[in-house]
Amino acid sequence: MRYYPQIEIDIEKAAEFMELTPSKLEEIIEKRNLKRNWDEYNNIYRFEGHAPHMEDGTVLIDHHGSFELVRGFPKIKRAMLLEPAVKESFSGIDIVAVEEKMNGYNVRVIEYNGKLIAFTRSGHVCPYSTERVQNLLKMDIFADHPDIVIYGEMVGPENPYVQKHVYGIDSLEFFVFDIRYKDTGQAIPVTERRELAERYGFKQARLFGEFAISEASERITEIIRELGKKGREGVVIKDPKMVLQPIKYTCSESNCNDLRQAFKFYNEAGRDYLFSRVVREGFQSYEWKESEEEFRERCLRLGESILRPMKSTIEQVESGVRISDEFRIRVRDRNIIDRFRSYLERLGLYVIFEEPEKEGDEYVINVRKMNKSTNDKTLAMLEGQLWS
Amino acid sequence: MRYYPQIEIDIEKAAEFMELTPSKLEEIIEKRNLKRNWDEYNNIYRFEGHAPHMEDGTVLIDHHGSFELVRGFPKIKRAMLLEPAVKESFSGIDIVAVEEKMNGYNVRVIEYNGKLIAFTRSGHVCPYSTERVQNLLKMDIFADHPDIVIYGEMVGPENPYVQKHVYGIDSLEFFVFDIRYKDTGQAIPVTERRELAERYGFKQARLFGEFAISEASERITEIIRELGKKGREGVVIKDPKMVLQPIKYTCSESNCNDLRQAFKFYNEAGRDYLFSRVVREGFQSYEWKESEEEFRERCLRLGESILRPMKSTIEQVESGVRISDEFRIRVRDRNIIDRFRSYLERLGLYVIFEEPEKEGDEYVINVRKMNKSTNDKTLAMLEGQLWS
Repeated sequence: MRYYPQIEIDIEKAAEFMELTPSKLEEIIEKRNLKRNWDEYNNIYRFEGHAPHMEDGTVLIDHHGSFELVRGFPKIKRAMLLEPAVKESFSGIDIVAVEEKMNGYNVRVIEYNGKLIAFTRSGHVCPYSTERVQNLLKMDIFADHPDIVIYGEMVGPENPYVQKHVYGIDSLEFFVFDIRYKDTGQAIPVTERRELAERYGFKQARLFGEFAISEASERITEIIRELGKKGREGVVIKDPKMVLQPIKYTCSESNCNDLRQAFKFYNEAGRDYLFSRVVREGFQSYEWKESEEEFRERCLRLGESILRPMKSTIEQVESGVRISDEFRIRVRDRNIIDRFRSYLERLGLYVIFEEPEKEGDEYVINVRKMNKSTNDKTLAMLEGQLWS
Repeated sequence: MRYYPQIEIDIEKAAEFMELTPSKLEEIIEKRNLKRNWDEYNNIYRFEGHAPHMEDGTVLIDHHGSFELVRGFPKIKRAMLLEPAVKESFSGIDIVAVEEKMNGYNVRVIEYNGKLIAFTRSGHVCPYSTERVQNLLKMDIFADHPDIVIYGEMVGPENPYVQKHVYGIDSLEFFVFDIRYKDTGQAIPVTERRELAERYGFKQARLFGEFAISEASERITEIIRELGKKGREGVVIKDPKMVLQPIKYTCSESNCNDLRQAFKFYNEAGRDYLFSRVVREGFQSYEWKESEEEFRERCLRLGESILRPMKSTIEQVESGVRISDEFRIRVRDRNIIDRFRSYLERLGLYVIFEEPEKEGDEYVINVRKMNKSTNDKTLAMLEGQLWS
């Protein structure tokens, strides 16, 4: 067998554990679709790209020749038209459970060598999230249930990824929305999972209720309108038994807020990112049978959410300011600051960390993430260069 | 040398004519970047992709071993911010000429075997455009100047590509905007070219005037505001000597009209198409220092131009109608109808031609172009499928 310098696992044993042929696993490694984590996590690997029967971001832990798998969080598909999508996706069952989809970032938490660790969606061990979950979650659930993975949303303003103030959270909280068995990826049914999370004192994504399929889309529409007014994101609609795949549905306001955030850095904003959000607005407007006035409000909201941040960026760059993303993080363990900076740099980001300030037993650090592409493009246009 | 079944030119001679090495030309052929036309035009080839020093859509005509080159129309770059772009693009000269950029489709006309033929931008010989130019242009210019290519815009409602009613044209007209020497691609200076076109009785893109660089952006902004009100597209700003590259600048209204047209078929609308038009609005809004009210009007215009056609498409598909692009063409030579249909089919379009109706000495034909992707996607959503 070939030797892969970055990958030091026993390929035969690992392949057998994952029910792959060794040559299949070798192929994944050859294509560089198995990546290794750093530092004390260097026996933790993550799958990138599409490995067969393996959700993206799936993690393989090598305990000196015995293995453990932490499956990636399955992508939840989106309803464009709520009513037909609910009927079609949940045909054969009578009731759906509706939980809030919170706007933060998705992490998976497991116990590892007597500590909690937090994986981002891509399967990286995030040093900041890992430090935070030590303070946010108690470990006793893993003593009783060593075979589970806790999936949750990290929500609040103090984080490097998605900063939201609409949840009344000052720093950062962890909200459980899913618990699954480690190796199979099988999810625990909604009621059972919520009772389990409750028993161990976890915060949870809100359950709006269980609704009969016949009334679900009407009830969810009401919920979505209310969430929209509050600037919240949307809902995930689930088979209470977690056998059928959940679907998601979101608010126009949240959609437009995403665009507003993205178009500050218009030259980094993905074409697909823009297109997919625009299309959601079209379908919701159709399904809600809006009056001409409501429709024009939606059109104005969409247009403003794109042009206002973009115009403001051009104005700032013209006035000599270089735009950047600013965020704040908070840690108890001061060593995490450098660890987290080098983590972000390894991911290819250009970040500037200000001096930590002590607040009680914690350190607060302001960070600026520079977005070179939009700054450069805007300057070039101001200097009279042509678009293309 | 290898034999390329589709390509029957003498590679050594052709390469020598184009100042390429034979192996370079072979490489272009291998990569299928040299394509052959059909029927009586099967000795006319076009370059696709990027051949070195050759504009896209450049045409090579093989006269039994002696060659002729018709260069593709050079891409005109776009000003995002008019004032700095004019200063930067035309530094070193004092005066620019400003001509109207009309909204139709770009064709190149040459004389070929005693007839006129019209190439589309990609270098295809378009049977419809070719038939039309026989009636729109007199050939005598080519007797006097056999070494020129006439570049113009086909404008008006009766065409398969871009149908516009804003020019007061009932059928289709040809407006010259450029005349170049065939082999070198060198353009004739603006005044000389306009006099030449005038002398042979051609319609021409409007010349707004020649302006000093110092006042050009202000004058052009006034012109753009007026053109916008009339639903017209914009301007091309040129070095009167045609030595420096021209630049283009367009109206927000035209930009939004493009989106309105495109989003009827939202699932075919390119992501880049949407993104680039959105970005233009942001820059123009900044440069025009709009009041809050004007800015909101622009945002509304942008939002409506995307969502209104999309919503209408969903409503139509829901009501059982399948959306399509409808256009009308008019020919004198009835044989062209079938030729043109098979041309469109060869380009991969699904078209339905209605029965020709005789009007005077011409035939009028209504054509429907079906857009399967948007119809299918909309139906799927209405049936409750998920986006992805």
